[in-house]
Amino acid sequence: MTTLTQEERIRNTGTGSLPSISTRAKLTQDSPIRKLSAIAEARKQKGIKVFHLNIGQPDLPTPPVVFETIRGLKLSTLAYAPSNGLPQALEAWKSYFRTFDIDVEEKEIIVTAGGSEAIVFAMCAICDYGDDIIVFEPFYTNYNGFASIANVKLNPIPLRIQDGFHLPPSEEIVRRITSRTRGILVCNPSNPTGTIYSREELSRLADIVKRHGLFLLSDEVYREFAYDTPVSSVLHFPEIAEQAVLLDSTSKRFNVCGARIGALASHNKEVVQSAFRFGMARLSVASIEQLALVPLLTSPRTYTQPIVEEFRRRRDIVYEGLGSIPGVTFYKPEGAFYLMVGLPVKDSEHFTKWLIEEFAYEGETVLLAPGPGFYASRNAGSNEVRLAFMLIGDDLRKALGVLRVALEEYAKKF
Amino acid sequence: MTTLTQEERIRNTGTGSLPSISTRAKLTQDSPIRKLSAIAEARKQKGIKVFHLNIGQPDLPTPPVVFETIRGLKLSTLAYAPSNGLPQALEAWKSYFRTFDIDVEEKEIIVTAGGSEAIVFAMCAICDYGDDIIVFEPFYTNYNGFASIANVKLNPIPLRIQDGFHLPPSEEIVRRITSRTRGILVCNPSNPTGTIYSREELSRLADIVKRHGLFLLSDEVYREFAYDTPVSSVLHFPEIAEQAVLLDSTSKRFNVCGARIGALASHNKEVVQSAFRFGMARLSVASIEQLALVPLLTSPRTYTQPIVEEFRRRRDIVYEGLGSIPGVTFYKPEGAFYLMVGLPVKDSEHFTKWLIEEFAYEGETVLLAPGPGFYASRNAGSNEVRLAFMLIGDDLRKALGVLRVALEEYAKKF
Repeated sequence: MTTLTQEERIRNTGTGSLPSISTRAKLTQDSPIRKLSAIAEARKQKGIKVFHLNIGQPDLPTPPVVFETIRGLKLSTLAYAPSNGLPQALEAWKSYFRTFDIDVEEKEIIVTAGGSEAIVFAMCAICDYGDDIIVFEPFYTNYNGFASIANVKLNPIPLRIQDGFHLPPSEEIVRRITSRTRGILVCNPSNPTGTIYSREELSRLADIVKRHGLFLLSDEVYREFAYDTPVSSVLHFPEIAEQAVLLDSTSKRFNVCGARIGALASHNKEVVQSAFRFGMARLSVASIEQLALVPLLTSPRTYTQPIVEEFRRRRDIVYEGLGSIPGVTFYKPEGAFYLMVGLPVKDSEHFTKWLIEEFAYEGETVLLAPGPGFYASRNAGSNEVRLAFMLIGDDLRKALGVLRVALEEYAKKF
Repeated sequence: MTTLTQEERIRNTGTGSLPSISTRAKLTQDSPIRKLSAIAEARKQKGIKVFHLNIGQPDLPTPPVVFETIRGLKLSTLAYAPSNGLPQALEAWKSYFRTFDIDVEEKEIIVTAGGSEAIVFAMCAICDYGDDIIVFEPFYTNYNGFASIANVKLNPIPLRIQDGFHLPPSEEIVRRITSRTRGILVCNPSNPTGTIYSREELSRLADIVKRHGLFLLSDEVYREFAYDTPVSSVLHFPEIAEQAVLLDSTSKRFNVCGARIGALASHNKEVVQSAFRFGMARLSVASIEQLALVPLLTSPRTYTQPIVEEFRRRRDIVYEGLGSIPGVTFYKPEGAFYLMVGLPVKDSEHFTKWLIEEFAYEGETVLLAPGPGFYASRNAGSNEVRLAFMLIGDDLRKALGVLRVALEEYAKKF
């Protein structure tokens, strides 16, 4: 969690005592996605099959061209790359963006260590201590960790499952702007909701940031995972060219999570220059991966199309499967590979723990990510879970079947 | 630069105006090491040979085993590694540390994206906004950038070239401790001074952090570059086991700067757990490099010994060569591959710019890093330069000859 609301210092500062860690470190939460993993491992040891619907690690192979490129690299020295990225990588990112009608020059791009670093750099570039960034909750849980590192406050606006987690009326957003609000951060398509904000919704956000002098940061790492309509980029709105910052990553779309290559792109020279300076401090991003991903970035659709088709099938299976479970609240996710599901339980933390720790149906159970971890507001999401559709179709159907039986049994027990 | 001393906001926050970047981004300096690089490139275009004594990028090849290991990797999916590091990498780091009588368990180590990330994580783990960390200046200039990202203040204590940049009496250090001081950060062996703090000096620091309840952070990335006596690690002092944090990197010692693999190690469980949580936010460090460096970490001396021998020769050449230049102040660097040199000039920024922009002797000139960039205190280091001995012997001798002639000519002109 962020540090700002809790100013009190929990430390011992007496002479001669052991020093204590920082308050922000104490308040940084464990990953709600990974917190039940140890229990799941213990369960597997007992012979129970666990369907992992908790985590967004793609289960498809990395395109072989990545490994072929690496094997073909003629390097004798692993030198620092330029802090903004290797020229070949910058050119590849530019060409990649062009595929989506996003026109940025090499000098408007900073290659980063995953989308994570792009987000930290953007937060540091626009916020000082005490400033806040509006996020829509439920949100990607690691935004908390980034805010803790960058020492900025997240200012959450709740969305509603009944709206498919689409944006509320503009007044609701404007009402949350404080004198210290520096920007709005959206994830589009959204992790954890699978929502794609329409051109009209983004247009409203553009209008708000224009009227209130804010930045609009857009995390578009799931860009290709759009099952019904294409995704509008924050850089498609010329009226906020100087206020828009695009945050991106290759991890999900190319199944290269372990490569740690992302990017920040903006037409705002100062923001790019700031990210460049923060980049100079950490010197460079791993050279081999920058080069290895050039073929993917240069002809992206070749690699993303089969992946996206597979996830569309899974999306449809999940949507159909959830329809056969009594009492659940859900919607059709438009993108990414997640959705938040409302369960007929009071406390999804309790349910998910019971599910992985005690329940099994025909030797199988399911691991889900409890909803509250994706919310900053207290008690929000308490009956929700995030479901990642990371399994092949048959397993996905089985997993949903296990979930249905589990909910019946849980209702009888508690 | 750090943000704390300058609280005023330079921004426009009026309705409808363009948003401005953060004060901390504005105050983050450009790299003093790289700032003259563009001029150097222009000069090369004109046919002038430039000897780079400004930058610490090793010029020796990376051990071939790194590339052989990469070519031999049997990977089909580049998945996220565990946030604290791949098990093989953690085991290799543990074995590496053991070589230097540093006993840490795998669970006390976090693999990081270079030493840079280890330093940011350590700063975030021990400091909240308003807290400061004591550094000895001149210091590694990127500490400024890390402090800016982590939003902490650096509290510099000046060292003196006359002392070979060794530590001042304990009273001088203690006097600088404020109610918000959370730790002391040393770089040992030091970039940019080449100083190795003796066991006695570290023991005095251990005593100070013990008495005042502080952390002692030690950046030991140049550990092997010790030409006269071995380096004591901060983890060699059991009396401060809970207060010591070791920050490390493979970059320099193995000539793998572009791999971006470092580590944080500590016996303080809370610090390690904090770094782990920050690590969870950024998910993982590039898997391929974690695996590629295992052979180096497992038998480190095989690879570092020839490198260190070469740098010892260079150190001796530099020490001898500087002795033949009238008016310079210097000392024998004990480690790393840098030293600060006092020049008979008033303004080293002016001299180094003139040197690279206008001067040439027999078609050759020298690029140096001006001293002030390594100091936080105003006007400090104004007659100093950092000299990195990154050239093979003959070039190093020639470069020092060019510097000697340049200083003579500069004295006549200005």
